Amino acid sequence: MSDKTYAAYSVEDYLAEAAAARPTPGGGSASALAGAAGAAMACMAANFTVGKKKYKDRWERVGELLAVCERARQTLLGVVADDAAAYAHVSAAYAMPKDTPEQKTQRTAAIQDALKKAMEPPMTAFVACADALAVLDELAGLANPNLVSDVGVAAALLGGALDGARLNVEINLAFLKDEACVAAARRALEQKGPPARDAARKTLDKVSHRITQ
Amino acid sequence: MSDKTYAAYSVEDYLAEAAAARPTPGGGSASALAGAAGAAMACMAANFTVGKKKYKDRWERVGELLAVCERARQTLLGVVADDAAAYAHVSAAYAMPKDTPEQKTQRTAAIQDALKKAMEPPMTAFVACADALAVLDELAGLANPNLVSDVGVAAALLGGALDGARLNVEINLAFLKDEACVAAARRALEQKGPPARDAARKTLDKVSHRITQ
Repeated sequence: MSDKTYAAYSVEDYLAEAAAARPTPGGGSASALAGAAGAAMACMAANFTVGKKKYKDRWERVGELLAVCERARQTLLGVVADDAAAYAHVSAAYAMPKDTPEQKTQRTAAIQDALKKAMEPPMTAFVACADALAVLDELAGLANPNLVSDVGVAAALLGGALDGARLNVEINLAFLKDEACVAAARRALEQKGPPARDAARKTLDKVSHRITQ
Repeated sequence: MSDKTYAAYSVEDYLAEAAAARPTPGGGSASALAGAAGAAMACMAANFTVGKKKYKDRWERVGELLAVCERARQTLLGVVADDAAAYAHVSAAYAMPKDTPEQKTQRTAAIQDALKKAMEPPMTAFVACADALAVLDELAGLANPNLVSDVGVAAALLGGALDGARLNVEINLAFLKDEACVAAARRALEQKGPPARDAARKTLDKVSHRITQ
């Protein structure tokens, strides 16, 4: 990796690098990017509400929802870069020598350690998507109605990003041997995943209905 | 707008601009970005298959699937920038004077014309997402299995982007008065939407199953 994180790449260069036969940016980073784009749409809708006289009675609550979505956006932006760095550690561990029994033991331990760390960015992205999705239904009801389709877009993109982040946690779990760690991660996915998915679907359906009726 | 299209913005700056209380980049552009990130993951999986000796028997077919996904990626990248330009036309039309009956007529015609044009980028994004989604199930079966989670991420992100693009077509349709144009657009959404959604779900489920079994 160069010194430049993927957050500093142009959109065009990031996408070209993602498409190439190079491991990074990979699925964790791409999912975080899509989630950040979704969170940004929720922020835009909230930012077009707070400060507008017409919606003064809602400023306080929409401001709170905005803070949740803005935090998710920042977290997801962080993962766009982090996920690639985490992959580099896994890659380096797999490249360790395995000629002697001692080297093999060291290499296995390093791989396991790197995999655990590599799981963190997509898990962080997963939780950030779930956190933002949890407030979208309320935001769809309170935000400036001119921006309602953007709240729907937020639900659609964050829902897709949630699934993408989940796959990137699961692909690491498949190779992890620390059973307690695996069980804790699976619990997190199972607890937060279904309600977040439901929230995405509910907000998307509600917005679709409001637009097309 | 500055001379710089959103494709040339850094990822960080694009996302900050998207979150701000400024109309562009809006939901059409953000959906296209998420879709392009998804298409890029499909391209990466294909690019890690074509050229690898182990998968020589699949190069030809995976190369064809790659061409579909790469075209979708390029199209979606184009929409990231186009959608914002289209919005600028709508905005300019709404800002036209409406003091005399003649001005009102001209303004209404300009708004209708701009709305029709504004519908094109999200419709283009919608079709590009559907085209890429249509080949993902086959790609999941043929691509280098080390990249299977990335094909799943492609399905998740393109599925979300498809829904986001659809909302951005529908929000324009709600204000369009040309009934033939509205009917044609609704037909396209109804014909391409459900099979693309099903493809996204099917590929995502298949990949999840392969990872977690």
